[in-house]
Amino acid sequence: MSLVGSRPRPGGPARGRPRSEAVERAILEGVMKLLEDGVPLAELSIERVARTAGVGKATIYRRWSGKEELFVDVVRAAEPPDPELPGTSLRDDLVVLLESLRRRGLATRSSALLHNVYAQMKSSPKIWAAYHTAVIEPRRVLTMEVLRRAQRDGELRPDVDLELANDMFVGPMLVRAVMRPDADLPEHLPEHIVDTVLQGLRPVSPAAA
Amino acid sequence: MSLVGSRPRPGGPARGRPRSEAVERAILEGVMKLLEDGVPLAELSIERVARTAGVGKATIYRRWSGKEELFVDVVRAAEPPDPELPGTSLRDDLVVLLESLRRRGLATRSSALLHNVYAQMKSSPKIWAAYHTAVIEPRRVLTMEVLRRAQRDGELRPDVDLELANDMFVGPMLVRAVMRPDADLPEHLPEHIVDTVLQGLRPVSPAAA
Repeated sequence: MSLVGSRPRPGGPARGRPRSEAVERAILEGVMKLLEDGVPLAELSIERVARTAGVGKATIYRRWSGKEELFVDVVRAAEPPDPELPGTSLRDDLVVLLESLRRRGLATRSSALLHNVYAQMKSSPKIWAAYHTAVIEPRRVLTMEVLRRAQRDGELRPDVDLELANDMFVGPMLVRAVMRPDADLPEHLPEHIVDTVLQGLRPVSPAAA
Repeated sequence: MSLVGSRPRPGGPARGRPRSEAVERAILEGVMKLLEDGVPLAELSIERVARTAGVGKATIYRRWSGKEELFVDVVRAAEPPDPELPGTSLRDDLVVLLESLRRRGLATRSSALLHNVYAQMKSSPKIWAAYHTAVIEPRRVLTMEVLRRAQRDGELRPDVDLELANDMFVGPMLVRAVMRPDADLPEHLPEHIVDTVLQGLRPVSPAAA
């Protein structure tokens, strides 16, 4: 493979990785610029993106099968990156997963672009489905793996329904981060949620204390 | 006050309660008809509602201060009614509260009208704010009262943060009912959530068993 800047002409075939990455970045930034300028998603054609990024339409279609996939990558580039799980304990992994949801919530609140992007995404079933497949579903699968391993290792009661356990850890965070945009997202909320869900809310009975 | 049908002319002042209720119902049904016909919320003017319901605009403005308040009442008429709390125990009250969220989720899935109405509501900040004030906030206040009383009566640990406890009970149900429209909403989910949140997910230690 040839490398860096071997073909500086926009629209030329992308042969080297850095060159290809630069083109990709230009395209993603082109979409962000259009969104920042207030262009609604419905009017965001591949043609317009190509013109803004200074590339040919074919260059875009070589990388993304369509507007939906391109748009999902724009969202992912604007979102905080996916977390690396420490793998040291159920508690540690869950705290990292919830912390990443908390950061996404904070990012959405502080970024008018992300806020706008999520709102538009939800009103487009095709784009929402693409985002679901690319971002939400893999995150859920990852959390389920963490829970399954923990149950096998005796960190969770053997009779606990893992689908419900997932919603019990993730639900309180999502309700605050996504559904109630004015809710508090304090720094130690992930630890607080994980510890409280593990311990339960019932008073300790005298026999068990 | 005069009663039943004393002034059958549409648009005349509503003086009696049953007459007034019939007019209100006609107006709410008029809005629903327009929504069912696919009229977008943005085009739903008070004038058009008045024409559809066969009443004068003044008749509507006497009852609702504007489109937002009228629309919220339409949503409430289409939603399952608010629950009556038994008040017998924390568990019983929470199960009834979560059951009402489950029923709303099921109603939204089976009613194209409700589904459409929620989607449109969320894209209109003013109507969403009105719905929040009329429906969501009172429900949250009610749940907080139930939790506060339970903590005072020793049914919840004294160190539990009640705002977090609220999100722990309500979050798993909302995540399923609202955010994941393909998630299961089985019959005993409310009991299952309440009992699991109270008990916690950690294995019982040998000393406490």
